[in-house]
Amino acid sequence: MSKERRSQCPISFTLDLVGDKWSLLILRDLMLFNKKYYGEFLNSRESISTNILADRLQRLENSGLISKQKDEQDKKRLIYRPTEKGLDLLPLILEMVQWGVKYDMQTAAPLSEVKKMKKDREGYVKNIRKRFQCQK
Amino acid sequence: MSKERRSQCPISFTLDLVGDKWSLLILRDLMLFNKKYYGEFLNSRESISTNILADRLQRLENSGLISKQKDEQDKKRLIYRPTEKGLDLLPLILEMVQWGVKYDMQTAAPLSEVKKMKKDREGYVKNIRKRFQCQK
Repeated sequence: MSKERRSQCPISFTLDLVGDKWSLLILRDLMLFNKKYYGEFLNSRESISTNILADRLQRLENSGLISKQKDEQDKKRLIYRPTEKGLDLLPLILEMVQWGVKYDMQTAAPLSEVKKMKKDREGYVKNIRKRFQCQK
Repeated sequence: MSKERRSQCPISFTLDLVGDKWSLLILRDLMLFNKKYYGEFLNSRESISTNILADRLQRLENSGLISKQKDEQDKKRLIYRPTEKGLDLLPLILEMVQWGVKYDMQTAAPLSEVKKMKKDREGYVKNIRKRFQCQK
């Protein structure tokens, strides 16, 4: 994302790639909400604009966090999916859920789902990963 | 940070507060590197500018993630420290360390420390928390 890295700190490295308000929401859409098309990301509640969405998808692809390929059913459509490197951000994203749910009085997160994540985080991550491993 | 929230998603909530390139580095400085003065944050490797630093400190304080008070030894100096809400971001920050270390070929993170974090994350977090609970 940045042309030059700011330091050799791993936290700064991570923030250089996903430290903005949108990238992790696209990864959330891909991994937690099973979205895969441009139009689906565009329709998320946060109302991302088309230029920011296009920019972030390109950056995420350049950073090796997502990949795109032609839809087999409709060759004009592109399908996005997380890579292994992107899937490895799942624990980080689940920590964001836990923190957000704790401090956001107006959260709309389904609490049964949040409990499941908390109770068996490894199993939760494994289940999501399985979804992507089945696809070619 | 944002005037209006984008959605009631806990991930978006978290990103609205710390989804930028600098806020979590300041929290890193406070919690992992034991820094507490403005000048110390300014001297971190990432070379934050004075206006961004001042802005982020104010935002973090407004969001209840850090607090400031006068230094007992030198009343003209301010001491910053994380609040309970800020300390609760430690697991998220440690996930960033793990991910960054895995994917950054040029990481300068001390690997013995990273191993310690990974092996007993709860104990690691507890030790850092203890440091702040001893202070008034």
